[in-house]
Amino acid sequence: MGPWTIFLVAVLLAAALGGEQAAVQAAVVKYDWTVDYLSAAPDCVERLIIAINGQFPSPTIQAVQGDTVVVNLKNNLPTEGVTIHWHGISQKGTPFSDGAAFVSQCPINPGEIFTYKFVVDKSGTYFYHGHFGMQRAAGLFGSLIVSLPPGEKEPFSYDGEFSLLLSDWYHQSIYLQELGLSSIPFEFVGEPQSLLIQGRGKYNCSLDLCPVGSPDCLQCNASANAACAAPFVLPVQPGKTYRLRLGSAAILSSLNFIIENHNMTVVEADSHYVEPFVVDNLDIYSGQSYSVLITANQEPTRNYWVGLNVRGRLPATPTGLAVLQYLPSNSSSGLLLPPTPAPQSPVWNDFAVSVAQAEKYAAKTGLAYSAPPAKSHRLLIFLNTQNTIDGHIRWAINNISYVPTATPVLAAFKFKLWKAFDQTPPPDRPPPSDNHLDIYATPNANSSHARYGNGVYVFKLGEVVDVVIQNTNTLNPNNSEIHSWHLHGHSFWVLGYGKGVFDPQTDPAQRYNLVNPPLRNTVAVFPYGWVAIRFIADNPGAWPFHCHIEPHFFMGMGTVFAEGIHNLPHIPSQTLGCGLTKPNW
Amino acid sequence: MGPWTIFLVAVLLAAALGGEQAAVQAAVVKYDWTVDYLSAAPDCVERLIIAINGQFPSPTIQAVQGDTVVVNLKNNLPTEGVTIHWHGISQKGTPFSDGAAFVSQCPINPGEIFTYKFVVDKSGTYFYHGHFGMQRAAGLFGSLIVSLPPGEKEPFSYDGEFSLLLSDWYHQSIYLQELGLSSIPFEFVGEPQSLLIQGRGKYNCSLDLCPVGSPDCLQCNASANAACAAPFVLPVQPGKTYRLRLGSAAILSSLNFIIENHNMTVVEADSHYVEPFVVDNLDIYSGQSYSVLITANQEPTRNYWVGLNVRGRLPATPTGLAVLQYLPSNSSSGLLLPPTPAPQSPVWNDFAVSVAQAEKYAAKTGLAYSAPPAKSHRLLIFLNTQNTIDGHIRWAINNISYVPTATPVLAAFKFKLWKAFDQTPPPDRPPPSDNHLDIYATPNANSSHARYGNGVYVFKLGEVVDVVIQNTNTLNPNNSEIHSWHLHGHSFWVLGYGKGVFDPQTDPAQRYNLVNPPLRNTVAVFPYGWVAIRFIADNPGAWPFHCHIEPHFFMGMGTVFAEGIHNLPHIPSQTLGCGLTKPNW
Repeated sequence: MGPWTIFLVAVLLAAALGGEQAAVQAAVVKYDWTVDYLSAAPDCVERLIIAINGQFPSPTIQAVQGDTVVVNLKNNLPTEGVTIHWHGISQKGTPFSDGAAFVSQCPINPGEIFTYKFVVDKSGTYFYHGHFGMQRAAGLFGSLIVSLPPGEKEPFSYDGEFSLLLSDWYHQSIYLQELGLSSIPFEFVGEPQSLLIQGRGKYNCSLDLCPVGSPDCLQCNASANAACAAPFVLPVQPGKTYRLRLGSAAILSSLNFIIENHNMTVVEADSHYVEPFVVDNLDIYSGQSYSVLITANQEPTRNYWVGLNVRGRLPATPTGLAVLQYLPSNSSSGLLLPPTPAPQSPVWNDFAVSVAQAEKYAAKTGLAYSAPPAKSHRLLIFLNTQNTIDGHIRWAINNISYVPTATPVLAAFKFKLWKAFDQTPPPDRPPPSDNHLDIYATPNANSSHARYGNGVYVFKLGEVVDVVIQNTNTLNPNNSEIHSWHLHGHSFWVLGYGKGVFDPQTDPAQRYNLVNPPLRNTVAVFPYGWVAIRFIADNPGAWPFHCHIEPHFFMGMGTVFAEGIHNLPHIPSQTLGCGLTKPNW
Repeated sequence: MGPWTIFLVAVLLAAALGGEQAAVQAAVVKYDWTVDYLSAAPDCVERLIIAINGQFPSPTIQAVQGDTVVVNLKNNLPTEGVTIHWHGISQKGTPFSDGAAFVSQCPINPGEIFTYKFVVDKSGTYFYHGHFGMQRAAGLFGSLIVSLPPGEKEPFSYDGEFSLLLSDWYHQSIYLQELGLSSIPFEFVGEPQSLLIQGRGKYNCSLDLCPVGSPDCLQCNASANAACAAPFVLPVQPGKTYRLRLGSAAILSSLNFIIENHNMTVVEADSHYVEPFVVDNLDIYSGQSYSVLITANQEPTRNYWVGLNVRGRLPATPTGLAVLQYLPSNSSSGLLLPPTPAPQSPVWNDFAVSVAQAEKYAAKTGLAYSAPPAKSHRLLIFLNTQNTIDGHIRWAINNISYVPTATPVLAAFKFKLWKAFDQTPPPDRPPPSDNHLDIYATPNANSSHARYGNGVYVFKLGEVVDVVIQNTNTLNPNNSEIHSWHLHGHSFWVLGYGKGVFDPQTDPAQRYNLVNPPLRNTVAVFPYGWVAIRFIADNPGAWPFHCHIEPHFFMGMGTVFAEGIHNLPHIPSQTLGCGLTKPNW
């Protein structure tokens, strides 16, 4: 619970080489962290949080591209294991540091210290979070910012920056949430109680009393002086430009970020530069990160709301609020709240607006960008369905609903522990009976034979893989939900989106952007639509690919990709000990 | 969550030997259990429970002396490890099946199946419970009844029997309780909300509204028809005698069990026969078990309350109630509640009454009873103190406050992993500065230098060990608390109790009973008093010795005894994998 400590150990590489060039410093950035319970009230309602060094959100990691980050993580929880996933970090050569429980490592037992060690090989905006059960929903997340090396410049300029980790927030414990998701009948916790901006929100009024966007809602959602949850403040100088680093650790919600009267120029998505474009509201799906530039070019005698709303699901949560504070005039006597209603986002179910924004993303070419290979070696079509298995509601991909192994998949490949997981790889395509996919049917005929499984997709090293994620109707009539798919260990090109059923004969030619598709690690698939991604299987390891909506992954919506399984690095002992990786002494 | 299954595999030993004697059957009693969360309301208030096969209390094990019990335990909790301790079972030859987390085994990880296998070598009344963090307080406990082999008879007779597991019950989650106990400032959950008899109680009134024992309290504490928590019913035939098997899984409370108008004859304590004696109320300390005989010799036209009260701490919990139902007249139209107030126990702080009852216990000699060796080889004096360490309130023994290791102590001895725990054994006596113990001082000068530790007391195989547990004042003036000390892997003789400071020169001669002291596995030490026990270190293994009050052990009130460390059996792989027992592949 003590303060966290940072040690910067400079390693002078160039100096060691004795070259004539200026010394290039690659540092080791070291953190000593303890995971503990914390009882806190980020939205004014006390609840149990899983915190690092007593902080919520967890501490921010600051590193420079090329640095090695070392985190000594002590698990001080009494009975829970824990792991931390460094979301978006490639983990080249260190797949055992990816922090996905039962894929890259065994959970860290209570009392153990686990050392995560990895190179941050690309500048950008990242975050990290718990990746075991639903521990992210217990508040176990924090920012990870990787700056450019000294001397390198971003392809845009700004005068200052803020980092805002965005999240939805529940009052029910994760244990009850997990129980409900596993129960017959299924019990879902529903919409979040609050939306948090950098860990702050305010819960004290119902939507009945306080409709979203109503001026009456202000006193409920923000207060300058409340002991709990004073809104996060972004102080700006008139005329200056700021970079906002945004990340969504949301559990369920598709978020929309908006700043009163201020446009935002999107310049980065998931650590990759994008061709700049201007929006007045930004969709952020769980697991995504962005940088936007804003200029403080509005009337400077007042302040402005920074707002966070739910999209994609019928909102039942008031706007989360922060304050853009114009300096110096508004900082003299406490925080002046903006005199206006909370900012509104587009109507929750106007999916066309969301798709249109998603389709605006294009990579900023030049710099370090590589266009995708013109062709892929393999096409996977992943039919997302909601199913009933043995009375449980489960999500499935091509009729397989993922259940975690008891043995880390990475170790299973390394040590040939073939009993650790299903040895039949899951299908590349929806079942044969689904040649004529009816994605609008419910219950979905495509998924009538869904079953539990944990088979792995194995790729050759260097294989170019396309995955088309095909959305369908849920178990409820006329309902299809947004999913936010995240791939560990890689960035992928987002080749295109479409409505209806993906047609492998025509859609690639008609709808794929192979020139400057954006690189990402997390992409949304929209209701009744599909999204196509391409990646190169060039990172030896075992990598979860899953919906980042936490209850969805908990309910089976994911799988594991493995590649370079004959080129795996040494697996440290500390990642082992569970399942089939117990010693036989 | 499915129904639990039992397989009885008869192994005909004598038949295999081909002798002329009647076949002696030693069975293998097999259970397949799954540990899951359960949301249930044993006292009418919903809370999260850790349950086995969806049941609270957990399923009862029924076995016959000499049987081998096999429990395949699947941990289906999302992120928590789990272990089960078979309280009172000697585990001769199977110390790795004792179920004490980080002493006998690593916690069982989520998704793993662990097989407990042990012989129940002595008939009697036992129970089992979680032994990791405070999981027992989450409701993880159940009965374990070992019957005599066919043909053998108890030294008392009865017409029927009931098994009642007794417990106190909190509404706060164990995670918050654990956090509070570790916090600065210390936050204690306080007195329990309810007392449960065989998992049933009723919480809906405050002590203000409903003083303990008040007739107005009846509707609060028992109802014949409530959907939740109908009181447990013990149907009896007039004139018949019944054996009540009682066990206390209490978290904090010293319990007092009482049946309106009915005396109880105590015949068994912690699976050992005692010289029968009659009480009208029975003290039961956490971790203890008893058999009492009652005869249904009262007016049979009405029913009678079975009551459970708190003693030893200022009670803030209404009487827990069950109903002794006289058949057949009172069973026709639902359950008739007794027309009387809830039964009262002796005043909570009349410790003289408690000590007097404790001193009534004597072993029933003859049968299998052995008197203790006349002398011990080694005397440990364990000064129990409450201390402050680095701002945390902790319990300590001779100034050492136990912190769990990350490596099972048993495996550490077997595989010589000496870095697993403190290699300096803890002291046999209170520190030298404490030659003149002032057990009434507060803060206690004896404990001004308490520190964290996890050293182990190591005994030679066969060594006869005396432990005198010496109570003191807590950090609060004029306050000394009851503790209930439990030894794993052994029964011990309770040689005697005393007030004030134990004097090794005079007390053994004056106060020890070496003729027929009772054998037990759990004994209370009373405020400002001491208790002396003797045991033979004849069970190769590593065995926790600790206060069975769950927050006390969580706060360091315990230690580990090891013996026969050169004669340890093979340690199964399934118990390993944590701490220093990870494989180095």
